[in-house]
Amino acid sequence: MSVRLVLVEPEGRINFGFILRLCKNFEVYDIYVVNPRFNIDDPEVVEFAAKGSDLIKVVRVVDSLDDALRNVEISLCTSAKSSDEDDVLRHSEPPEILEEVFRRYSKVALVFGRESVGLTRDELRKCTAVITIPGNPEYNVMNISHAVAVILYLTWRYRGVKRRYLPDVKRLDILNKYFEQVLNQLPLDDRYKDKAKIVFNRFIKLYPLRKGEVTTIYRLLKTLLYVLRTARK
Amino acid sequence: MSVRLVLVEPEGRINFGFILRLCKNFEVYDIYVVNPRFNIDDPEVVEFAAKGSDLIKVVRVVDSLDDALRNVEISLCTSAKSSDEDDVLRHSEPPEILEEVFRRYSKVALVFGRESVGLTRDELRKCTAVITIPGNPEYNVMNISHAVAVILYLTWRYRGVKRRYLPDVKRLDILNKYFEQVLNQLPLDDRYKDKAKIVFNRFIKLYPLRKGEVTTIYRLLKTLLYVLRTARK
Repeated sequence: MSVRLVLVEPEGRINFGFILRLCKNFEVYDIYVVNPRFNIDDPEVVEFAAKGSDLIKVVRVVDSLDDALRNVEISLCTSAKSSDEDDVLRHSEPPEILEEVFRRYSKVALVFGRESVGLTRDELRKCTAVITIPGNPEYNVMNISHAVAVILYLTWRYRGVKRRYLPDVKRLDILNKYFEQVLNQLPLDDRYKDKAKIVFNRFIKLYPLRKGEVTTIYRLLKTLLYVLRTARK
Repeated sequence: MSVRLVLVEPEGRINFGFILRLCKNFEVYDIYVVNPRFNIDDPEVVEFAAKGSDLIKVVRVVDSLDDALRNVEISLCTSAKSSDEDDVLRHSEPPEILEEVFRRYSKVALVFGRESVGLTRDELRKCTAVITIPGNPEYNVMNISHAVAVILYLTWRYRGVKRRYLPDVKRLDILNKYFEQVLNQLPLDDRYKDKAKIVFNRFIKLYPLRKGEVTTIYRLLKTLLYVLRTARK
């Protein structure tokens, strides 16, 4: 079971210090920072990290979100902006989805965006799903370190959840591959395809699929693909 | 349903600002501060409160915890220090106890102590129960504003929980009164009595007692009291 915290272009030293302290408090020791806007060992960071400041030496600073997401099975980002009905990229889940996530995956990345503007759509697209912490509809914008506090607390809480039968992640990615191939056989514009892929990936990775369901979807996609390809010849 | 946040002698302006922002985010507008160690409208408070800074004008500053707890049905404090087996005052519950609390009470106070030394034993005694947020056993000391974030998030989450049959709080306090009278009939030292009262109060106020159970306890205490008093004559 490993939890990786990923911060994309963090801007505030105080927040970063607080976040390290929270990592120490909730035992999250796999920390990636993409292009921080300050020196991660700045004295203000050290001050606010308190006894978490020894984690500065384990933090990995990288140049891209792709690097930070290497070797994880699933990645969840937090965003205050939730979706339009139609904007599937911003459809979001409540934080309790983490219970299901920890039941199913052992290499999980939790991604937090910039204090000022959050994550770009390209970055959101690299994450499997979005979590929004519910709150006052008139002002639901938590400070990043407080959002990290809520999410890491739940992470701690759900770490020990019992795993039942779970499909292998590689097998699910084969479903994604076939789904994409099916889409490519269809007269659909790229924007729609893109949306459909997000929805499908979330469905197979977050819905508690049983083995028989995985097999059923696999077979459906293989069949569809065969039929579509044959029809084009 | 009302939630009151009570801060006892807060010391940090940044933390206080963050806490006001969290109150705005989670719609907690009943805020008491006992003897703050700074001006609550200090510019640093305003800065870190962000859009929560308009809550400064609703904050009530008082001189004592008793004043801050007036008119609440139950009060819960947060403490990083959990109990010795024997120190019942510090026996603590996980944060999820709030679900049961919000099911049963509509006037709840959430009490947070000083950043440096937390709450005194006298202050702990004024609260019904203690919550400890679980974490790294080697370093489980959250910054106060982050502890507030976790607790207010759960508060928000549990606010809508469905209320089933619940005993009237006044009725439960009558049980407390009889329990105390029974204790006073017994050859026990004050230290033990004090401990027993804390345990009993928590039991009746947090355990999901049904009507029949309340009646049973009531009858038991009345009977005990009658027998003990008669025996002494």
